[in-house]
Amino acid sequence: MNGTSQEPLYFEDVEVGRVYVKSATFEVTREEIMQFAGKWDPRPFHVDEAAAADSVFGGLVACSAHIFSILSWFASRGEGRTASLAALGFDSMRMHHPVRPGDRISCQIQCQDKRPSRAKDDRGIVRYEGTLINQDGVVVFSAVVTTLVAKRPR
Amino acid sequence: MNGTSQEPLYFEDVEVGRVYVKSATFEVTREEIMQFAGKWDPRPFHVDEAAAADSVFGGLVACSAHIFSILSWFASRGEGRTASLAALGFDSMRMHHPVRPGDRISCQIQCQDKRPSRAKDDRGIVRYEGTLINQDGVVVFSAVVTTLVAKRPR
Repeated sequence: MNGTSQEPLYFEDVEVGRVYVKSATFEVTREEIMQFAGKWDPRPFHVDEAAAADSVFGGLVACSAHIFSILSWFASRGEGRTASLAALGFDSMRMHHPVRPGDRISCQIQCQDKRPSRAKDDRGIVRYEGTLINQDGVVVFSAVVTTLVAKRPR
Repeated sequence: MNGTSQEPLYFEDVEVGRVYVKSATFEVTREEIMQFAGKWDPRPFHVDEAAAADSVFGGLVACSAHIFSILSWFASRGEGRTASLAALGFDSMRMHHPVRPGDRISCQIQCQDKRPSRAKDDRGIVRYEGTLINQDGVVVFSAVVTTLVAKRPR
């Protein structure tokens, strides 16, 4: 099968509509939530247990950049990994549900469309939706990713 | 002035159309590019100098999650910082230009619209565009952020 950690999906391999379910899971820890947000988004509900308990979340939650990074972690390895040359953009990114300490996150990737590059014949543009799901089956995050993908080397 | 590091912008303070220019700059280092991507997006053009030289970028570039985190770093401090209760979503996120080692990034925040929450009278929804600009005045990244913002405590 293509798209395993050994072999990325080249442009030709990407099947529109197909869902790739990553076999890996990502475990979110309290330490990582606080460390990540301490550097990049030190709002109280990401770095301070007591303040987080009083927030709309009722407890510590991962910051957006951390959650986005978790999607990136999945996208760059395992099933459905594309032979990406460059990320172009991200759309419709939604924080559907809080990500909390102890969450075990899984990921699905579904290709929405693809088209060859008009400028260069060795690559194409692929749009896929990446979805993060917690241990209870709740979708916590989704985003549509547009990426430049290499065609299979000749 | 509101929106300094001392005082966040409450919902009432947010002026649609106003541009907040952050006084801080963020310097991107080779070490941080490789360390961030090594954890979250270990594609060769983010972590391997030689492979990056052969990539479409012609050299090492920061990964998307890193760049998004830099926007988050700016958004959570300084001019135009909102009294955010929760991030709701991100749209039209575009990687306009590579972010490279040694780049000194600045940030502008412009409110696009705001509306009171229908469900709760102590908060509202604010949409703003965040733009990252390098030391040459080139826009490297932009995204539209939708966030839940507290009204001023009574």
